[in-house]
Amino acid sequence: MTDAAQRGRLRARSLGVVPGTLPTGPLNAITDVDGVLVGHTTLDDGAELHTGVTAVVPPRLGLPAAVHTGNGYGKLVGSTQVDELGVLESPIVLTATLSVFRAADAVLTYLMRLRPDGLSFNPLVGETNDGHLSDIRRRPITEQHVLDALDGASGGLPAEGCVGAGTGTTALGYKAGIGTSSRRLTAGGDPVTVGALVQANFGGVLTVQGTPMPVEELLPGVRDEQPPGNSCMIVIATDAPLDARRLGRLARRAIFAMGRVGASYAHGSGDYAIAFSTAPPQREPLPDDRLDPLFAAVMDAVEEALLNSLFTATTTTGVHGRTSHALPYDRLPVHPGTAG
Amino acid sequence: MTDAAQRGRLRARSLGVVPGTLPTGPLNAITDVDGVLVGHTTLDDGAELHTGVTAVVPPRLGLPAAVHTGNGYGKLVGSTQVDELGVLESPIVLTATLSVFRAADAVLTYLMRLRPDGLSFNPLVGETNDGHLSDIRRRPITEQHVLDALDGASGGLPAEGCVGAGTGTTALGYKAGIGTSSRRLTAGGDPVTVGALVQANFGGVLTVQGTPMPVEELLPGVRDEQPPGNSCMIVIATDAPLDARRLGRLARRAIFAMGRVGASYAHGSGDYAIAFSTAPPQREPLPDDRLDPLFAAVMDAVEEALLNSLFTATTTTGVHGRTSHALPYDRLPVHPGTAG
Amino acid sequence: MTDAAQRGRLRARSLGVVPGTLPTGPLNAITDVDGVLVGHTTLDDGAELHTGVTAVVPPRLGLPAAVHTGNGYGKLVGSTQVDELGVLESPIVLTATLSVFRAADAVLTYLMRLRPDGLSFNPLVGETNDGHLSDIRRRPITEQHVLDALDGASGGLPAEGCVGAGTGTTALGYKAGIGTSSRRLTAGGDPVTVGALVQANFGGVLTVQGTPMPVEELLPGVRDEQPPGNSCMIVIATDAPLDARRLGRLARRAIFAMGRVGASYAHGSGDYAIAFSTAPPQREPLPDDRLDPLFAAVMDAVEEALLNSLFTATTTTGVHGRTSHALPYDRLPVHPGTAG
Amino acid sequence: MTDAAQRGRLRARSLGVVPGTLPTGPLNAITDVDGVLVGHTTLDDGAELHTGVTAVVPPRLGLPAAVHTGNGYGKLVGSTQVDELGVLESPIVLTATLSVFRAADAVLTYLMRLRPDGLSFNPLVGETNDGHLSDIRRRPITEQHVLDALDGASGGLPAEGCVGAGTGTTALGYKAGIGTSSRRLTAGGDPVTVGALVQANFGGVLTVQGTPMPVEELLPGVRDEQPPGNSCMIVIATDAPLDARRLGRLARRAIFAMGRVGASYAHGSGDYAIAFSTAPPQREPLPDDRLDPLFAAVMDAVEEALLNSLFTATTTTGVHGRTSHALPYDRLPVHPGTAG
Repeated sequence: MTDAAQRGRLRARSLGVVPGTLPTGPLNAITDVDGVLVGHTTLDDGAELHTGVTAVVPPRLGLPAAVHTGNGYGKLVGSTQVDELGVLESPIVLTATLSVFRAADAVLTYLMRLRPDGLSFNPLVGETNDGHLSDIRRRPITEQHVLDALDGASGGLPAEGCVGAGTGTTALGYKAGIGTSSRRLTAGGDPVTVGALVQANFGGVLTVQGTPMPVEELLPGVRDEQPPGNSCMIVIATDAPLDARRLGRLARRAIFAMGRVGASYAHGSGDYAIAFSTAPPQREPLPDDRLDPLFAAVMDAVEEALLNSLFTATTTTGVHGRTSHALPYDRLPVHPGTAG
Repeated sequence: MTDAAQRGRLRARSLGVVPGTLPTGPLNAITDVDGVLVGHTTLDDGAELHTGVTAVVPPRLGLPAAVHTGNGYGKLVGSTQVDELGVLESPIVLTATLSVFRAADAVLTYLMRLRPDGLSFNPLVGETNDGHLSDIRRRPITEQHVLDALDGASGGLPAEGCVGAGTGTTALGYKAGIGTSSRRLTAGGDPVTVGALVQANFGGVLTVQGTPMPVEELLPGVRDEQPPGNSCMIVIATDAPLDARRLGRLARRAIFAMGRVGASYAHGSGDYAIAFSTAPPQREPLPDDRLDPLFAAVMDAVEEALLNSLFTATTTTGVHGRTSHALPYDRLPVHPGTAG
Repeated sequence: MTDAAQRGRLRARSLGVVPGTLPTGPLNAITDVDGVLVGHTTLDDGAELHTGVTAVVPPRLGLPAAVHTGNGYGKLVGSTQVDELGVLESPIVLTATLSVFRAADAVLTYLMRLRPDGLSFNPLVGETNDGHLSDIRRRPITEQHVLDALDGASGGLPAEGCVGAGTGTTALGYKAGIGTSSRRLTAGGDPVTVGALVQANFGGVLTVQGTPMPVEELLPGVRDEQPPGNSCMIVIATDAPLDARRLGRLARRAIFAMGRVGASYAHGSGDYAIAFSTAPPQREPLPDDRLDPLFAAVMDAVEEALLNSLFTATTTTGVHGRTSHALPYDRLPVHPGTAG
Repeated sequence: MTDAAQRGRLRARSLGVVPGTLPTGPLNAITDVDGVLVGHTTLDDGAELHTGVTAVVPPRLGLPAAVHTGNGYGKLVGSTQVDELGVLESPIVLTATLSVFRAADAVLTYLMRLRPDGLSFNPLVGETNDGHLSDIRRRPITEQHVLDALDGASGGLPAEGCVGAGTGTTALGYKAGIGTSSRRLTAGGDPVTVGALVQANFGGVLTVQGTPMPVEELLPGVRDEQPPGNSCMIVIATDAPLDARRLGRLARRAIFAMGRVGASYAHGSGDYAIAFSTAPPQREPLPDDRLDPLFAAVMDAVEEALLNSLFTATTTTGVHGRTSHALPYDRLPVHPGTAG
C-alpha cells in the first residue's frame, strides 16, 4: 500500500483515469528508468510550514540533458550551463521559491563531497512558490534537509502528493504536490522507458481526460483561490539514447502536456522541463524521425504525473488559515478501481 | 450565408462547440481586429492540384511582431529578422512547402511596389506541406497568385476550410484548411480584440471540447492516413498595445492551444506562430501581469480557429487518388444550432 | 597562379599577414576539408550588375550542422529547421538579398532532382545586400545561375574576391567579396581541418593584425561610404566529429572573429555563421573540453578568410557610378612575399 | 587620487590607452549613469582568500533589462526570468563561483527587507571562478558581506582592480579584477551615457589597441598559467531609453568587445552580459536604426573597462602559492600620462 493509499488517496490510474494507450513501467514512476532515484524531505508543522525538498538522482553525473523554458517567470538555477554543455552535472533538486538558493548551496556541498578536488559545479535546482500555504519568507530549508533528500533517495515508488517539494503546492484550484508516472514503448527497435516527475503548482481549470472539473462544481461553497505566482517543474528521465538536442525536443513536449490537464499557462507560472537520458554514451542517438512515440510517451506520462500529483494530495490548511482542498473522487468521469 | 454554409458546412460555434467563455468579435474572425485584411487564392483543379495562397495583411507595415517556433521542422521565411527587430515588415503569406520561395519572391514584388526605392525587405512567408492531396512538386504557385491574394485581401469574414493555403491540408485525420476566430475582452482597462487565423495540417486525434473523435470511430471503414510531414501556421493579431517581447509570449500560447484539439506535436510538423499588434506605437505596452486574459483569449481563439478549419472543410480527393474526409457532424458531442 | 594573382591581387598570407600560429591546409581554403566543393556564378556587366551566386557543397547531405545568428537583420532561408534538427539538408548557397528567394527556389530544383520522390526539402540560402554596387532590385539571379554554381562546384582553391556572391560586396570601406582560409590542428588526438568561407559585406574600420587601416588614410581623397544595410555570411566546415550543439559553439566563434578585422557589428548587418561536420556519423563527438583548439582555428580561419576577401578584391565601379576601391597594399603593416 | 593610484596603479586612459573616439563621462565609470551605484566587499587575507562581492545597484527596481549569454559555462542566477519579463528586479551582484548561491540568498534578504510582504523575487547574481588564487571551496562569502556591498554602494569612481568580486581574478595571463568605464554620446537627438563594469577572469593573449602583449614577453621567466575554468561578467547601464529587446542587442555587443583585448572565448569561460536602462518608462525606446552609436559606445566602454581591470590590478599571491602578476607598464605601446 502506498503512502497515498494509507491516507485514503489513490493514483489516477487506480480510479480508471488512464491517459493514452502505452503501458506503464512496473511502478508507473520515474524510478522505472533504471538507476533513477527519488528522495523527499517534508517539512509540515501542521500550521505555517508546508514545504520541502524533492531530489531526482540520476544513476551517474555527466548524462546528456536539456532544459526547456515554457514560461520563464521562475528560477531554474543552473539552466544556462545545461543549455551550453547539454549535460546534467548534478542531481535535480526541487524546493520552494525563496529556499532555492539555500538548496542550491546544499547541492554544492553534496557535489563537493563527491569530488573533493573540484572547483566548479553546476547544481540544477528548480522551485515553485508554495507561499499560498507555507510561510515562504521564513526560508526554512536547511542544508541538511537537502542532503537528507539526496542521501535518502531510492528506487521504488516515490511518495506522491503532499510530500517533499510538493508539500505546499496547489494546482488548478486543488491541493496538489508531487506526482510521477512512466511509459514503456519501443523506439528505434529497442524497448525504452520514459518517466516523469512533476512539482505541480499552477493555475487553470482541472481537466480530467477532457472533462473540465472546476472547483466551484466539485466543491460547492469553496472559492477557487488561485495564487498568482506559482510554477510547474517537470523532470523527464529516459533510457532511450538521446543527445541534448533531442532531449530538448522531449522537454518541449513535457510543457505542451500541461495543457491536457487544463493549465492556463499563466504569466506568473514559471514552467520548466528538464530531460535527461541514462543510456550509455557510446550508443548513437535515436534518429529524429523515430521520436514521435517518445513524444507521445512524454506527454502521456506528464499528464498522468500531473493527475497523480492532485489525486494523491490531501486537504491542507496552511499559513493565514488558507485551505487547499483535495480533489474529490466522487464526481470524476470515471469509476474507482483498486489502489495502484 | 458564408461560403462554407453554401457547401453545407458550418462553423464550430454554430454547432454548439464554443471554446472558453469570452465573447467573439462581430465576425468571429481575425478581421475583427481593425484594419486586418485577409485574401485567398485557391488552386483546385479537382484532381492533382489542391493548393493556394492565403494572405493576412496588417493595417500598416512596421508593427511590433514576434514569431514563436513550436517545432522547427518547417520553413518560416523571414523569421530571424522578426526575432532581431521585433517588427512586421511585410504582410504574412501562407502557402505550400515547395512554393514558399516563389511566394516569398512575389511578396518582394509587392513590397518593392510599395517602396520603389527600397533595397531591403523582409517577406514573412509560412508554409505547410499539402503534398498528401496536391502535386506539390509542380510548384504551381505563381507571382500573380500571391499578388491576387494580397491585392484582393479584404475585411469581412474570410472564407474558411478548403480555400487558399488550406485547400489541400489535412489535420487530425480529417480534411482541414484555413480557420479563423476572435475574442473580445478587457485588458488594462480597455476593450481589446484578439484574432487568430490558422493553416491547419498536423497529426493527432481530433479532440472536440475534451472528447476524442478519432477517424476510425467517426468514419468507419476510413483509414486514418496521417501524412508524416506537415505543419501548422498560426497568425495572431490584436489591437492591444504590446511590444515584441510580450507578443512572443502570446505566440507561445498559440502553440500551446494546438494540444486542445488533439495535436500530437509530431517531429515532422513545423509549428509556428506569428503575433502582431495594431495598436498605435505611442501607446505604452500593457504590463506583463495584465496579460493573462490575453493569453486565455489567444488560446480560445486558436482552438476555435483550428476547429473551424476542420468544421468548414469539405471532402477532397487529390493526387494519387487519396481522399481526405470532411468531419461528420452527427457524432459531435454537441447539438447543431444555426449557421454563423 | 590564382585568379586573384592574375589580376595583380594577392592573398593576405602572401603579403605576410598571418593570423594565429596554426598551419593552414594545403590550399588554405574551405576545400581543404575533404569532399567540400565550392562553385561560383558571377554576374558582372561592368556597369550596373555586380552580383552572383556562391555554393558550398558538402560531401553528402544529412551532415550535422548549426546556425548562429550574430545579428538577425538578414535572411537566412532554412535556419529554423537547422536549429530544430541539427542537420544540413542542402548545399549552402549565398547570393544577393533580393535574389535570395529565387536562389532558394533553384536549390529546391537541385534537391528535387537528387530525390525525385521527395516532398520536403530545406534549402539553406544566405544573402547579403550588394545594392551599393549592383542594381539589386532587378533580381538578376536565375535558376540556371544557381544550378551552374552548384553543378560547377569543385575542389581546389576557390576563386576569391569579386566573384560569385561577393562580386558586388564591400566591407570596412573597401571592395570585398568572397574569401576563404583553413587551419590544420590536432583535436582529441586526431588531425583535423577547419575551413572557412565568407561573403564579406559589413561596416567598421579595417584592422589588419591589430592596426586600424581606415579608408581616409590609405586612400586619401576617397570618401568612406559605408552602405547601411549589409551582412556577413560565414560558412565553417570541419572534419572533426561534432554534433549540432558543438557546431553551434563553433559558429558563435565565427561571429566573434569578425571583430578582429574591425567589424562594427552594426544594426543593419545580418551576420550569420553556419557550421557543419563531415565526420562519419558513427564517430563520437569530441568532448566539449577539447574544443578550445577548434575555437582558435575557427577564429583564425575566419579572420584570414575575411582578410582574403578584401586582399583579393579589385576596384569596382557599379550602379549610380559608385566606386568601391581595392585595399592598397603599400601601406600595410607587413612586407609583400610571394603569391600563395 | 584613486585607490589604484595609491597602489601605484593607473587606469588605461591615463597611460594613453584610449579605445575609440567618444568622450567618457566625468568619472569614466558606470556610475556616470545617473543613479547607478557600485559597492564592494573585499576578502583578502594575504594568503588563501582573495575573493569578494561587487554590487551594481540601479536607481530603482523594475528597469528594462536583458541578459546575453556569450558562453554559458557559468552560473547567472536569475537569467531566465530576465529573459521572460525583460525586467531587472534586483541589484546585480557578482561574486565567486562557489559562493554564488549564498550571495543570491543574501540578495533575497536584501529584497525581502525592501518589500516586507513580497513572496517572490528574482536576484540576479553572476559569478566567476577565482579558485586559481583563492580557496574557493571554503565558500567564504557570508550574507553580511553581500549586504555590506549593497548597503555601501555609492556613486563616485568605484574602486577597480583587486577589489570586490575581482579580488582573486586573472585575465589574459595577468592579474585582473574589476574595471569600469563610460562613454557619452548623442543618440536619437539626446545626450546619453553608457557605462560598463566588468569582472574579468578569462583566457587569451592580452591585446592593447591591437598589439598582443603575451605574458612570456612582458614578464620574462613567468609562466602563463591560464586557469581552465573562469568567466567574464559584464554589466552595461545606460540612460538611453531602450526596451529589453534593444538592451539585448547592446548586451551582445558587450560580449563581442571581449575579443578586442584578446579573449580566446574559451570553452570553460562563462561569459555573460547584463544590460539595463535607467530611462523613465514613459519614454519611447530609441528606434533600432539609431542604435549604432550606442553599440560603438558599449564596445569601447567594455574594452576600456576590461583594460582598466588589468591596469589597476596588483600582483597577488594566493592559494597553493600561485602568483598572478600585475601587467607591467613599461612595455606598453603607449606613453604614461597622469593619473585619472
